[in-house]
Amino acid sequence: MEQADDGTPALKPGRGRRKADDVRRATLVAASELLMDEGVGAVTFSKVAARAGVSKVTLYKWWPSPGALALDAYFATSRETLAFPDTGDVRHDLTEQLRAFVDLMNRSGTTIAGIVGAAQSDPDLSEALSTRYVQHRRALAVERLSTAQQAGQIREDVDLESIVDQLWGACYHRLLLPAQPLTHEFVDHLIANLLRGITPG
Amino acid sequence: MEQADDGTPALKPGRGRRKADDVRRATLVAASELLMDEGVGAVTFSKVAARAGVSKVTLYKWWPSPGALALDAYFATSRETLAFPDTGDVRHDLTEQLRAFVDLMNRSGTTIAGIVGAAQSDPDLSEALSTRYVQHRRALAVERLSTAQQAGQIREDVDLESIVDQLWGACYHRLLLPAQPLTHEFVDHLIANLLRGITPG
Repeated sequence: MEQADDGTPALKPGRGRRKADDVRRATLVAASELLMDEGVGAVTFSKVAARAGVSKVTLYKWWPSPGALALDAYFATSRETLAFPDTGDVRHDLTEQLRAFVDLMNRSGTTIAGIVGAAQSDPDLSEALSTRYVQHRRALAVERLSTAQQAGQIREDVDLESIVDQLWGACYHRLLLPAQPLTHEFVDHLIANLLRGITPG
Repeated sequence: MEQADDGTPALKPGRGRRKADDVRRATLVAASELLMDEGVGAVTFSKVAARAGVSKVTLYKWWPSPGALALDAYFATSRETLAFPDTGDVRHDLTEQLRAFVDLMNRSGTTIAGIVGAAQSDPDLSEALSTRYVQHRRALAVERLSTAQQAGQIREDVDLESIVDQLWGACYHRLLLPAQPLTHEFVDHLIANLLRGITPG
């Protein structure tokens, strides 16, 4: 794809400049493909620019680091798979969402673990992981839990942030410190433990 | 410290060979110091051998990889801090142990995150993390939970392995995908959510 020298998307005959939205979408698709195929280390501004047919200067303007771009791409592509359903039944909805989440981990676990692993020794990636992925995902989860709390399905005094760590965090634990499998049965245990409690009576 | 050329610990005048237990202990102390001071990348057979006054050949015989040595050292040094008390009161005992665990994470979080992070792209370290640390720690936790289950404090039908992910795993989640603090209050929420359940009634 052609590019203008000044770093803006190329003019195409009769069609005007490529729209910013299109450039952004093409960039995220290219970054996501590189991420899934080759891991987070392969997501460089040069490679993404070449693959998306976008100027490197544009990428430098829009993203503070290649890690930030990688995380935005991951967030965008996983958004649909990891959507939070709201049928009004919190047990059903959590089961659906968390089963989809472990399915994704079983498909793309190496990529996800690669991002989290690399972030532990890369301050830019760590910052991007936190601000561009973790905080957004936590907010979406807390939003669904909050709806359940307002509907009287979760007690008023329960700290919703800690639930996020006990559902999705428990799955990350099995991915990053492997010892036990990430199955639908595991998801069912996680939800049952919290909804019913683990003590008798 | 002197070393014999054949890789065994040095003979000392009038004291005989250094005992294998002493060599092992000195090696683990040296590896642990390097791990805490400089991170898992600094735990090489050469550096540990020099610091412990032990032959490199001995280390090659006893450990399959520097990562395995680092994990054995970490397990040995954290064993006491992370002991599982058994006073007969599971809520009290979990609270004590998990508060000590988050205190350790707040002190040595960079080291721990460094190990888990590096393991994601290093198969030898990943294997060592799983077999020399994670499996042992999980077994100790399940043992304490199992005692509580036999004492009737946890229901018979509860899957104990999933509880491990919802207590210690939830803490690893906050360490590795940071967004919320690792506090004693967080620990109290984790335990309360599971023991009481999060639903009304």
